[in-house]
Amino acid sequence: MAAPKGLARYLPILEWGRQYDRSILTSDLVAALIVTIMLIPQSLAYALLAGLPPVVGLYASILPLVAYAIFGTSRTLAVGPVAVISLMTASAAGAVAAQGTAQYLEAAITLAMLSGAMLAILGFLRMGFLANLLSHPVISGFITASGILIATSQLKHILGVRAGGDNWPDMLSSLAASLGTVNGWTLAMGLPTTLFLFWVRKGLKPALEAIGLAPRMAGIIAKAGPVIAVAATILAAIFLDLGDEGVNLVGAIPQGLPPFALPSFDMGLIGQLWVPALLISIIGFVESVSVAQTLAAKRRQRIAPDQELIGLGASNIASAFSGGYPVTGGFARSVVNFDAGAETPAAGAYTAVGIALASLFLTPLLFNLPIATLAATIIVAVLSLVDLKTPGRLWRYSKADFAAHMATILITLWAGVELGVIAGVAVGLLLYLWRASRPHAAIVGRVPGTEHFRNVLRHEVITDPAILSIRVDESLTYLNARWLEEYVLERVADQPEVQHVILMASAVNAIDASGLESLEAINHRLKDGGIAFHLSEVKGPVMDRLRRTHFLDELNGKVFLSHDHAVAALEGGQGVGKAT
Amino acid sequence: MAAPKGLARYLPILEWGRQYDRSILTSDLVAALIVTIMLIPQSLAYALLAGLPPVVGLYASILPLVAYAIFGTSRTLAVGPVAVISLMTASAAGAVAAQGTAQYLEAAITLAMLSGAMLAILGFLRMGFLANLLSHPVISGFITASGILIATSQLKHILGVRAGGDNWPDMLSSLAASLGTVNGWTLAMGLPTTLFLFWVRKGLKPALEAIGLAPRMAGIIAKAGPVIAVAATILAAIFLDLGDEGVNLVGAIPQGLPPFALPSFDMGLIGQLWVPALLISIIGFVESVSVAQTLAAKRRQRIAPDQELIGLGASNIASAFSGGYPVTGGFARSVVNFDAGAETPAAGAYTAVGIALASLFLTPLLFNLPIATLAATIIVAVLSLVDLKTPGRLWRYSKADFAAHMATILITLWAGVELGVIAGVAVGLLLYLWRASRPHAAIVGRVPGTEHFRNVLRHEVITDPAILSIRVDESLTYLNARWLEEYVLERVADQPEVQHVILMASAVNAIDASGLESLEAINHRLKDGGIAFHLSEVKGPVMDRLRRTHFLDELNGKVFLSHDHAVAALEGGQGVGKAT
Repeated sequence: MAAPKGLARYLPILEWGRQYDRSILTSDLVAALIVTIMLIPQSLAYALLAGLPPVVGLYASILPLVAYAIFGTSRTLAVGPVAVISLMTASAAGAVAAQGTAQYLEAAITLAMLSGAMLAILGFLRMGFLANLLSHPVISGFITASGILIATSQLKHILGVRAGGDNWPDMLSSLAASLGTVNGWTLAMGLPTTLFLFWVRKGLKPALEAIGLAPRMAGIIAKAGPVIAVAATILAAIFLDLGDEGVNLVGAIPQGLPPFALPSFDMGLIGQLWVPALLISIIGFVESVSVAQTLAAKRRQRIAPDQELIGLGASNIASAFSGGYPVTGGFARSVVNFDAGAETPAAGAYTAVGIALASLFLTPLLFNLPIATLAATIIVAVLSLVDLKTPGRLWRYSKADFAAHMATILITLWAGVELGVIAGVAVGLLLYLWRASRPHAAIVGRVPGTEHFRNVLRHEVITDPAILSIRVDESLTYLNARWLEEYVLERVADQPEVQHVILMASAVNAIDASGLESLEAINHRLKDGGIAFHLSEVKGPVMDRLRRTHFLDELNGKVFLSHDHAVAALEGGQGVGKAT
Repeated sequence: MAAPKGLARYLPILEWGRQYDRSILTSDLVAALIVTIMLIPQSLAYALLAGLPPVVGLYASILPLVAYAIFGTSRTLAVGPVAVISLMTASAAGAVAAQGTAQYLEAAITLAMLSGAMLAILGFLRMGFLANLLSHPVISGFITASGILIATSQLKHILGVRAGGDNWPDMLSSLAASLGTVNGWTLAMGLPTTLFLFWVRKGLKPALEAIGLAPRMAGIIAKAGPVIAVAATILAAIFLDLGDEGVNLVGAIPQGLPPFALPSFDMGLIGQLWVPALLISIIGFVESVSVAQTLAAKRRQRIAPDQELIGLGASNIASAFSGGYPVTGGFARSVVNFDAGAETPAAGAYTAVGIALASLFLTPLLFNLPIATLAATIIVAVLSLVDLKTPGRLWRYSKADFAAHMATILITLWAGVELGVIAGVAVGLLLYLWRASRPHAAIVGRVPGTEHFRNVLRHEVITDPAILSIRVDESLTYLNARWLEEYVLERVADQPEVQHVILMASAVNAIDASGLESLEAINHRLKDGGIAFHLSEVKGPVMDRLRRTHFLDELNGKVFLSHDHAVAALEGGQGVGKAT
């Protein structure tokens, strides 16, 4: 499949739209119906998590889906509100306004606007590689810690108490302090709902299979389990008059389509929100692309990460203009969409129609929905994200990755989501740079009777005290330029009889300007000490570049095609083998 | 020379102090005398550049030198006030207080304190590698731009006008606006002094050699040229009564030794100054270590960069406790110290005694020194740092390095020293990460009749449509993990007949946890598509690590010692050559 060219690169709809037919339409409509049923309670719940009115969750599930259908490259990604981004929105908006105020909603909309603009700009600049700064251990640490934070934040709704806190210790102590005010009816609704949803997650699919459903269909129906909980608790609330017993209900949701709203362009607000918006963008992009890539590979399709940035950017801008908040591709609902047979992004647009119909006609039915039910769906969803096996696995494999993972978890729990992400990126980068600044290198000697040269510490090899052969297993860049000078000069200082130093460059893929200056410095210093400096096995592209400089003219030695040649020539004899 | 152990590692004086004798004493005393003569006008001038009273420059040239003599590892580095650090001090202190106020001096002292503490902490944590973040093109761009900024900032003293500005455009327009108020007498002193000092720099040494001095001695005396300018302009100021003609003179300098002053621990001030203090620390460290390494190599000595952090940290803390400001190892004076024959850091301590004597007895003689003379010494010193050849050289060699260099120059000129350094580091790092995120890789095929496998795009090689051989020339890390998945899966998508993918890992020095997860993901996805996934030529240490995971158990293929073996086995035949 060739990559699309011209306008189709930026508008993938032009590509798949041409082959659209009745059979694809049927598949997409079926998938859309199932995703809609799953998305209604999710949208309400994640809006609650973001500290926003439930209807904002519905608004964020309409136009953003249409925008992604036009600009996105994944055939099956389902965008909308997701747990982690909702938590980050709550944290960022909560820093500039109090929940429930108009300023808080404005901050959430501004976050969607900023995040959309940043994603689109990164996409046009083809800067998707920035997402690489989040290593897998940092992402998984962040998701685990966010899952713990989110689940803890929802416990107050299950207990029917008032509690706060922006970080885990504060949340726990605030919850503990409020335990005297637990509302029995709320707990009586919330706890069984939570247990039921856990069972739905693990036990419903096998149960459905046991009564004869096909595994795929059983899996899809099991994903709609929360709808059962929603219906049952609404009925319970109505018949038991739970509103009068102090159980928090969703209450009146404005009926109708999302408003067309111009986001605010308050520079003060933008100044306060751009850092969290950037973090939301990057986390959202990483989550979304991971899901999209996994699903695309299953059908041997491709996605274009830079165009995905534009697709998600358009979604978020659409969310901002329709009173929503930041959205991205969600894992669970995309898998459902895929399993339900969605074939094109049009399925997302049909889902949008479904949610719009729900906003128009279903919201009165949700008046009596207990908040505790929504909290239970959130808790069950996010606890599945908490991964307790990873730390042990990382500890055994790589201490550096373990350090980055644990730093992300602990700082996210203790200092919040924003510092957690930043700390994870910083720790990962520092460890990477630390290793990059001291690459692997070895003094090599000849394997007897061959033209091979190996590490003197690992192999029985022959060396000549007048010749120092150094192999560097890394490109020479500014990160290791200082190390290179120290390494070579120290090896020379250790071997006083040395007359020739040969740098074996078989693993050097590139030499940047700093690396070149280090080579020049080494050459000058060795020359001062009366020692010749040679290179061997320099790769073609590296040699082409060196020819553009004065380095080769000034080199107090030669460049040899093979290390064998070099050693043989400097020993005054002939090489054992021929040039490679 | 073995690296010192135990206490001597942190107190290098225990190492060289043991061999101290009369002949070393004589060499050190001579060098100290020459450096003292050179350092007096420099100290006054750089304090002026930092916006501080001239005496602060003398204070910063006494205790810091003693501290470095105890803790530093370079035998010949001469520490004290330097141009770039003085400019950075002026920028940082100027952001929190007005020049001439007690708060400004307090800010300068706090910068020395913070910078000293940071350097020492980085030294104890052995974090000297952080200096690697400054690539050579960024450092040279920063020094060029700082040289231009400093020279421009001193023009007002040569012209005898009042002008300001924190960045180059502001400085130039402020100077232009003030041209109507030029003081003729100041210009009449300043311009000839500047020209004389330029001549001293280029012409005095040859002139001295022409009258029969040995080149080394001529070089040393030429470095003391500014003293002639100082003496001549003091005499001119006295006999022509220049103070009455509106020429700015140094005026009364408090006589006596530096005060013992406890630096302030005002948390508000520390909050404002820690970022510039960190930048001052890193720039100072990089400048100092470069000089120290160059000089040490000339005598086949070594320095220990992590201990240098501690030495410079101690110097700056000593500066803060004696009313000074941030210091580091200076290039010109260290070369003079070296050429004059200094053998141990004791020479620095003797220089400190010299400066202390000057503070006690010489300051009254400096009353009539025109400020223009000091400005002239600064201008001549810093213009030699401006390097106009580097941009062209970098453009030809590496566009990425050119970009980092020019970004540093332009942002330093337009937005000041702090943003300039930060931008240089950021641009360099982004370009590095961009390249690291898309490493070199190639599809390889067999060179006919051999066991060698080469890039299909560059060589005439034999490939089998059922076998895809991919060689990755880079360690597999989180920066390229996403790329690896895309690269392998796209190559597979391009070659539908493929049944076996072999990853040739001969250049893979390490695989981090993210790289491992990508390999697992590739394995699963290929397995879904009915394709086997093999590895070849995995290095020993990498294989040892993989054995600690489940990856090898789950691998839907084999690990082959050589690529030749792998291809031969999968083609159903025997390899051409034997295992390597």
